[in-house]
Amino acid sequence: MNLKQLSELLDLSQTTISRALNGYPEVSERTRFKVVEAARKHGYKPNSNARKLATGRAGSIGYVLPVGRNVDLDPHFVEFLSGMGEHALSREVDLSLTPAPYEKESEAYRRIAASRSVDGVYLSSMRNDEQRIALVRGLGLPFLAHGRALAPADGYACVDIDNEGAFHAATRLLLQLGHKRLAYLNGDTDYAFAVHRLNGVTRAMSEYGLAAESLRHHSAAMNEENGYRLAMMMFRDSDPATRPTGVLSASMFTTLGIVRALNHLGLKMPDDVSVITHDDVFPFLKPESFSVPLTTTRSSIRAAGARICERLVDIITGVESEPVQEIWPVELIVRASTGPAPAEGKRAHGRAAEPAE
Amino acid sequence: MNLKQLSELLDLSQTTISRALNGYPEVSERTRFKVVEAARKHGYKPNSNARKLATGRAGSIGYVLPVGRNVDLDPHFVEFLSGMGEHALSREVDLSLTPAPYEKESEAYRRIAASRSVDGVYLSSMRNDEQRIALVRGLGLPFLAHGRALAPADGYACVDIDNEGAFHAATRLLLQLGHKRLAYLNGDTDYAFAVHRLNGVTRAMSEYGLAAESLRHHSAAMNEENGYRLAMMMFRDSDPATRPTGVLSASMFTTLGIVRALNHLGLKMPDDVSVITHDDVFPFLKPESFSVPLTTTRSSIRAAGARICERLVDIITGVESEPVQEIWPVELIVRASTGPAPAEGKRAHGRAAEPAE
Repeated sequence: MNLKQLSELLDLSQTTISRALNGYPEVSERTRFKVVEAARKHGYKPNSNARKLATGRAGSIGYVLPVGRNVDLDPHFVEFLSGMGEHALSREVDLSLTPAPYEKESEAYRRIAASRSVDGVYLSSMRNDEQRIALVRGLGLPFLAHGRALAPADGYACVDIDNEGAFHAATRLLLQLGHKRLAYLNGDTDYAFAVHRLNGVTRAMSEYGLAAESLRHHSAAMNEENGYRLAMMMFRDSDPATRPTGVLSASMFTTLGIVRALNHLGLKMPDDVSVITHDDVFPFLKPESFSVPLTTTRSSIRAAGARICERLVDIITGVESEPVQEIWPVELIVRASTGPAPAEGKRAHGRAAEPAE
Repeated sequence: MNLKQLSELLDLSQTTISRALNGYPEVSERTRFKVVEAARKHGYKPNSNARKLATGRAGSIGYVLPVGRNVDLDPHFVEFLSGMGEHALSREVDLSLTPAPYEKESEAYRRIAASRSVDGVYLSSMRNDEQRIALVRGLGLPFLAHGRALAPADGYACVDIDNEGAFHAATRLLLQLGHKRLAYLNGDTDYAFAVHRLNGVTRAMSEYGLAAESLRHHSAAMNEENGYRLAMMMFRDSDPATRPTGVLSASMFTTLGIVRALNHLGLKMPDDVSVITHDDVFPFLKPESFSVPLTTTRSSIRAAGARICERLVDIITGVESEPVQEIWPVELIVRASTGPAPAEGKRAHGRAAEPAE
């Protein structure tokens, strides 16, 4: 049944029917109800769907949501969604989340492509050796990556931040301040961002003549618990002459744990330990909101969400035809958690340094 | 074009075509590509869609995602999504997020109902006077509420936690411990959960003969910054004989700020101030992970997400026909942040108490 037929059936103008089905407030609830019922009964697809059918589009962009008993979505995802949602609103598209455990991911992309329930997908949490790029390409699914895989490194559209540059700059600052014993509490190095960051750290170290092997590097899920556990391991009963004086941290949640460990051990920022943290800009927990405000590498994940939605829609509609690798610079914001390395002979704070107390 | 025709056209068995389109690994990538291309070209809708068309279902549940420059999604939403996704996976449904600013929310629900892009919706962040229930009911959209509005209070399906009971129990514990001057850093009281909790606090106070007016109550967004700001306001330059000794907090992020303020002012938990916090169970920041582990009211928001998905699918498929208001009890877990009220004559910690130091 088309609009004209429905209009005749209900004895209402085509304009009224369109308005009723598209949510305009001029139509009374009674009329709207009548129209919605009739449209459903007679299988009439209203304008938005008709337009979508005409253009061949679903009006939705897709994401395969990792799920599983041991899978924790990163809290920063809410900010990413906020950014994406703001832009999606302006382009009148929905976001469709298809849950899938890691081992059934390919199947999920295949189902999405086959059912044409979305017009394109974005990929995130890019891995070192990324299988999904070839997969979605083979399926003919328009896509954009949030982040970059280590391999394949070219030929696909992405938005990423300069993770290597950010951690290179952060490490260089610590080195300029005289720190020689560094630690990095990294995210999971199965993911490319963590490898990029590690490369930035070791590149800066090598520029200052320090061997990569001297870095205390730990790869773990980025939460408070791991931050605490790893910092305790590193600083408890440690010798002030050999323990790290400069610590890099992959996430604000990790740093909450590092700070708890330092407080517990009576070690001070920045006198005993300088700390630099990556900050995705998270309104619930800000780097200024630490007893000692944190020096950070900063890039808004909300802005990335908006940009990814914008470009994905451009890719779907053919506005963007050549794949662009868009890499955002990251700011290094200095606050009170960084300072000169403690002088070797200087009396250090902390229980470990003063066993006799 | 139907499956039989496509099978003849490609000279492939119907089984192979179904497998190719439904992501089974037995099919080679080359064959899959050929099938997907042909299906697209000839407008063949594969099984999952055919099934959905046959049952009249979209295979998707919807949520209107609040967006706007000043809108921050709560970080606990990632845990809710994880729970929802785990169950959605087992029922083979997707989650569809339709972004909308507050003032265009009704329009979004109307569009969802008209386009039949989802089979049902869940509502969250229920307000005191909730307009959405009548709206989605009028639109004939199956729905389930996460939380309960204050009005209308009956006749719709929901999953909620016993917010009033939780904060009644928390307050009663503080009163049993001898605390008489209480404060509550609440969430935004435009939302029903915050009013339910406040009712729990004042009901317990009245049972102990304390006037509701004596409660120091603040309603604000639940983040670290507000926790710090409000706690500083309450405890800085305050008289130890009149300042609160028992503090209730609506969220772990708020409590991070409270703890920072107490540390800053040299006030100790629980000697100077007892603190009880609501905990949605958040793997990135646990109540045990505070220098002084937190006493909490606890309920898993991830479990709520799974249950809401389960019941919404049951409502859509007609398994659940009568609207059930399912209210979950909340546990009160005692840790080190609560203790007896400081004796009036006892020397108190903190700068405010010792201006001469």
